[in-house]
Amino acid sequence: MSSAEPRVLKGFRDYLPAKMVPRQKMLRAIERTFERFGFLPLMTPALEHLDILTGKYGDEGESLMYRFRDQGGRDVALRYDLTVPLARVVAQYPELGLPFRRYQIAPVWRAEKPARGRFREFVQCDGDIVGSSDMAADAEVVCLAAELLSDLGVREFVIRLNNRNVLSGLAAKLGVTDAGKEATILRTIDKLPKIGEDETKRLLEESGLEARQAARALEFVGLRGETAEVLAGLRRFFDGDERGLRGTAELEEVFSIVRAAGLGERAELDLSIARGLNYYTGTIYEAFLGGLPGFGAVIGGGRYDSLIGIFRGEEIPGVGVSLGVDRLLEGLEELGLVEQVSSVAPVLVSVFGPEGAPYSARVAAKLRAAGIACALYPAYHKLGKQFRYAERSRFRWAVVAGPDEEARAEVSVKDLSTGRQESVGLDRLEEYLAARISAGPGT
Amino acid sequence: MSSAEPRVLKGFRDYLPAKMVPRQKMLRAIERTFERFGFLPLMTPALEHLDILTGKYGDEGESLMYRFRDQGGRDVALRYDLTVPLARVVAQYPELGLPFRRYQIAPVWRAEKPARGRFREFVQCDGDIVGSSDMAADAEVVCLAAELLSDLGVREFVIRLNNRNVLSGLAAKLGVTDAGKEATILRTIDKLPKIGEDETKRLLEESGLEARQAARALEFVGLRGETAEVLAGLRRFFDGDERGLRGTAELEEVFSIVRAAGLGERAELDLSIARGLNYYTGTIYEAFLGGLPGFGAVIGGGRYDSLIGIFRGEEIPGVGVSLGVDRLLEGLEELGLVEQVSSVAPVLVSVFGPEGAPYSARVAAKLRAAGIACALYPAYHKLGKQFRYAERSRFRWAVVAGPDEEARAEVSVKDLSTGRQESVGLDRLEEYLAARISAGPGT
Repeated sequence: MSSAEPRVLKGFRDYLPAKMVPRQKMLRAIERTFERFGFLPLMTPALEHLDILTGKYGDEGESLMYRFRDQGGRDVALRYDLTVPLARVVAQYPELGLPFRRYQIAPVWRAEKPARGRFREFVQCDGDIVGSSDMAADAEVVCLAAELLSDLGVREFVIRLNNRNVLSGLAAKLGVTDAGKEATILRTIDKLPKIGEDETKRLLEESGLEARQAARALEFVGLRGETAEVLAGLRRFFDGDERGLRGTAELEEVFSIVRAAGLGERAELDLSIARGLNYYTGTIYEAFLGGLPGFGAVIGGGRYDSLIGIFRGEEIPGVGVSLGVDRLLEGLEELGLVEQVSSVAPVLVSVFGPEGAPYSARVAAKLRAAGIACALYPAYHKLGKQFRYAERSRFRWAVVAGPDEEARAEVSVKDLSTGRQESVGLDRLEEYLAARISAGPGT
Repeated sequence: MSSAEPRVLKGFRDYLPAKMVPRQKMLRAIERTFERFGFLPLMTPALEHLDILTGKYGDEGESLMYRFRDQGGRDVALRYDLTVPLARVVAQYPELGLPFRRYQIAPVWRAEKPARGRFREFVQCDGDIVGSSDMAADAEVVCLAAELLSDLGVREFVIRLNNRNVLSGLAAKLGVTDAGKEATILRTIDKLPKIGEDETKRLLEESGLEARQAARALEFVGLRGETAEVLAGLRRFFDGDERGLRGTAELEEVFSIVRAAGLGERAELDLSIARGLNYYTGTIYEAFLGGLPGFGAVIGGGRYDSLIGIFRGEEIPGVGVSLGVDRLLEGLEELGLVEQVSSVAPVLVSVFGPEGAPYSARVAAKLRAAGIACALYPAYHKLGKQFRYAERSRFRWAVVAGPDEEARAEVSVKDLSTGRQESVGLDRLEEYLAARISAGPGT
């Protein structure tokens, strides 16, 4: 057999157990939260017909797509996001009915230039409600975003809400009627927290606003205060501008619902939230970790009413939540909310050669039947080597089940954090370990 | 935007919620079982450098590999199985140490001719222990296979064990010394349960055995009886044949350990188990569902001592368990062990227009805080439409939270299986529903 140099592709990565254990724990918690909100899991293939994906992501997106011709001469491409597959599914299976809420957690592939924190394969985690243009749906995904963070142990966070119609109303007030120019202004505002006021102002002017207009735009998006007061101010500002007033009314409605659901001050109006993507049409929001100013959004989403219907040739409204798995995990790590584990089982059962293996296997089976996770040491190595393995692999207890112990129907339990060793009768081993496991480390 | 016909590639499939809910439930149960045995999760990229995968799967495998040249001119291929990535990981990260036990649940891609039950994208689920050639490791994966089935609710199953050295010993006794011919004989024996004795005998003769030899081979693999007796018979049969005796001793050792672990008669010696794959070198086994004769193996695995070291240029022993996710799910469905669900939440909270939405959201939040999964109906449709949606989506209860109910700080709970409706005070709603959910359907 050939023996190539073991390596992964640039922009790709392995998740070794030390990274994978907390990551998987986080993903399982996320699934449970989605399901507590009645979101159903969906899975679509990694490969799609190329024509399903083309024409949806713009020229840049298209150039980043992994595409090729398969053995049957079909043009295919790797999944680029989870939204276009959702649009395909909604069109392909009308029996699913509307409204439809689903979540999908799956890798997507983009041939981006690799950089720190940017990868060519990364897991997206999306939840969407399609088939409703009512603000109850928008409020539902905002509540979901909050609950996702709470369930992961985050105590302090804020969800900043805005509405694309409000930003369009602002553009109209500034005399900007060109859609392309409006999009450029939104993208510039989106960068404000990163690049600061001066640079934002400079870029706004570069994109064609007069200095006075740029200043007014910055003043507008910088409006702060009690939500009801700011909303009242917006209504006055937009007097006569239908789109701005509609956005203001939508914001007001979403706030009334999420506050009733208990979000309180965790839901905050922030007129500088713009979201980079072109496809949003109403509510937009981003969630930030309280303890990490400057860390950037970990969850974002909003309403997009013209995407989901593309394969059905009609408008189907949609609103969603999107979570950056690796980014959020990084944030949780910085907040100390991620337990560092390199073992999933607290107990290692040692083995004394082929003659001793049956007794060790019996001990391991007893523990597992009691719900205590353990690994049977799988080789007939010397006991010292088994202990060193147990320590390196961060097991908490080593159960020594040798011939002497077997003769007395007991085992010897070594606490690897203290080095203390104790004899325990086989009949009460589960009880002994269960009590110590639930008491936590160092006891 | 373009609007291609919504469809998936031949040999690929979507998992809509009705399929995905039980499937995901099964996968989570499998993860828990792996972790109770101390197996650690690992994830590797979907795309690998082509040279990592080539030369490992034979000509046929190579022709089925999805390969292409990426944007950077690199030759890449989609993951074809989980074993070669494991071998790469073991070589690339020596700090992982040996022995190392990991599990990986991930899709693999093979451009097979699509057929009933055969797909081009399917999820593999492998657990392996690498770095030990001792039978304690073999016994551990056999116990794991049994526990995977038990944990999924399977009461009756059998794990049939054999050993490649025993089959090689048989070949030697028949005078077959050519490795290629031996492999052909093994592949033929592997087909025995499918094609029957006569056809097997014919194929054995076709591959060069005399009629007498073929009969003797069939007699050998058909040996049945008490394990200890059959093993004693094997020792006599192999008198003087080192390889056959070694296989017999290994089998004896594995049986002594798995029986001590409580497998009892669920572990069975079956000399006709051959496993199609060339790479097995010792223990081989397959697990069958008791209630479904003729359904075929749902779990299989064995020892392969020359695969894992390929990237390190040395032999690293390995032994594993491999589970066919979709096949097993199909079997569980036939056994009635898969709950048919199309909702993950039992409760739908109805919504009465924008004015009523805050109260409904408050009710939903209360339920969720109490751990009761519910969906807020996301649109301001008429109540009748909301009920029809609830029934179609198999919710069990609809909570009506209208303005009348709000005025009395209560809700109306409709049991969708009986149509009965009852008023419940908001303060005791969680208690009311929790009692009914734990009591199960129809109560």
